[in-house]
Amino acid sequence: MQMDATVISFADNNSIASHIANQLNAIYTIAKIHEFPDGESCVRIDPSKIRDTVFVLNSLYHPDQLVLPLLFLAGTLRDYKAKKIVLIAPYLAYMRQDKRFNEGEGISARYFARLISEYFDGLVTVDPHLHRIKSLDEIYTIPSHAIHAAPVVADWIYNNIKQPLLIGPDSESEQWVKYLAQMAQSPYVVLEKIRHGDNKVEVSLPQVQKWLKHTPVLFDDIISTGRTMIETIKHLKQTDLAAPVCIGVHGIFSGNAYQELVAAGASKVVTANTIEHHSNEINIAIPIVQAINQLKF
Amino acid sequence: MQMDATVISFADNNSIASHIANQLNAIYTIAKIHEFPDGESCVRIDPSKIRDTVFVLNSLYHPDQLVLPLLFLAGTLRDYKAKKIVLIAPYLAYMRQDKRFNEGEGISARYFARLISEYFDGLVTVDPHLHRIKSLDEIYTIPSHAIHAAPVVADWIYNNIKQPLLIGPDSESEQWVKYLAQMAQSPYVVLEKIRHGDNKVEVSLPQVQKWLKHTPVLFDDIISTGRTMIETIKHLKQTDLAAPVCIGVHGIFSGNAYQELVAAGASKVVTANTIEHHSNEINIAIPIVQAINQLKF
Repeated sequence: MQMDATVISFADNNSIASHIANQLNAIYTIAKIHEFPDGESCVRIDPSKIRDTVFVLNSLYHPDQLVLPLLFLAGTLRDYKAKKIVLIAPYLAYMRQDKRFNEGEGISARYFARLISEYFDGLVTVDPHLHRIKSLDEIYTIPSHAIHAAPVVADWIYNNIKQPLLIGPDSESEQWVKYLAQMAQSPYVVLEKIRHGDNKVEVSLPQVQKWLKHTPVLFDDIISTGRTMIETIKHLKQTDLAAPVCIGVHGIFSGNAYQELVAAGASKVVTANTIEHHSNEINIAIPIVQAINQLKF
Repeated sequence: MQMDATVISFADNNSIASHIANQLNAIYTIAKIHEFPDGESCVRIDPSKIRDTVFVLNSLYHPDQLVLPLLFLAGTLRDYKAKKIVLIAPYLAYMRQDKRFNEGEGISARYFARLISEYFDGLVTVDPHLHRIKSLDEIYTIPSHAIHAAPVVADWIYNNIKQPLLIGPDSESEQWVKYLAQMAQSPYVVLEKIRHGDNKVEVSLPQVQKWLKHTPVLFDDIISTGRTMIETIKHLKQTDLAAPVCIGVHGIFSGNAYQELVAAGASKVVTANTIEHHSNEINIAIPIVQAINQLKF
């Protein structure tokens, strides 16, 4: 069945966007950005490809440089009579500055949500970093849908790792580690931090002797600097467990985070394709297509 | 007289902003931008410095990277109870994409104006590049004021150049060159393009023998690539006139434009301080202060 809609993306999101358009049986087109010598940019689309409903598919990775072209794209689409413009941002930016950590700071999550809500009619994203903000509806005034990557992550673990052992870095992680382990039909252990005074933290390793033939799996929603995972790998090295596989939904890898994870002892680093990277092995396109098909207009 | 207002800028606009605050007798404070490893940014202000009326003083040079921190600054100021937020942008971006030059292109000038109009209560700028758009009011829905730099440019010429001779690069420039020459009490000549067929353009040099003791002065509102001025310098070299002084209001200098102008034969390149650059010799602070003092709230 042909969906009477357009999927549009900037060139660097081409691979997931064309895949999604293909699955939806929608028209796919690329929006071009021309950058002028003075640092300004101009967006250009192919008007013949624009339908009433347009899905703008673009991860909001390194958002500051991207946001103006993105708003210009929305403006251009409206000029060419698009009636409903939905932003599909597999990675959604600015969810972490969700409160005033210091007096005088802006609450970027709220300002960014206001901006996006003014220019788009709907938002679909994958595992937004919800913490103090419990639901996108608290800050986005447009209909939004957050896809959980856990099922496709669990599928990937189940299909690619022999005898996985999920590892939670601390007690806070127990809930998701248990959930993911159930879906992947794998056992799990959770490390425990024991504080001695203010600065000394010892990590107790639970009994792992019976899991020595298993492959440890570390998971986090975002791998940014990779610090948490690198610390956890250090603790695991004190045991006889095998080198762990590190999985992140969103692989931001700031600086040399990817190389540092590998150097620290990760046997493999795997991410979902919410942000294009050579570690992408977990395909998020299918749940995105399912979410789009369920959107009510 | 103390003005009960705040002037705030990001650090790289510090010198003109603090000067203006000083002239206004207003409070001056710097807004800090913290950049996180993942490429997101966070704005922080000193709340004790924020009054009901805030002038955000920032040139919109290389606007794509700047615009999100600028909108976050406006959001933060509102959170801290600023009632009237006026953007003072000595250089205003996105005035040149003022129509659809190619099918499918966005009209960035309009989209940018809409965005700024949503976040600020007023706009003051210097010589915006008005071409097909005749007035800022056509695209900005907030009160706006465009300051003309010509009087301070003419003053600078009058005070710094012995026997100036203003040069207009083509007949279109005659109007402003005449105006500037009158104010600087200087003579002027205008070069004329004579077309031979489609591609061959000859530039006729008017009688300049009587101006050989004068200093030629080239002027443009924006020096971006510097191409127009470099071409004009080449034509002047065919005469016995002295090496010209090149003056721009807004010195964008994309790539090596500044060095190329000097290499082409400019005896000196001078700009106004709407964009901070070592060529800044024309001070635009006083007319900005005058404009602010005349704003009606």
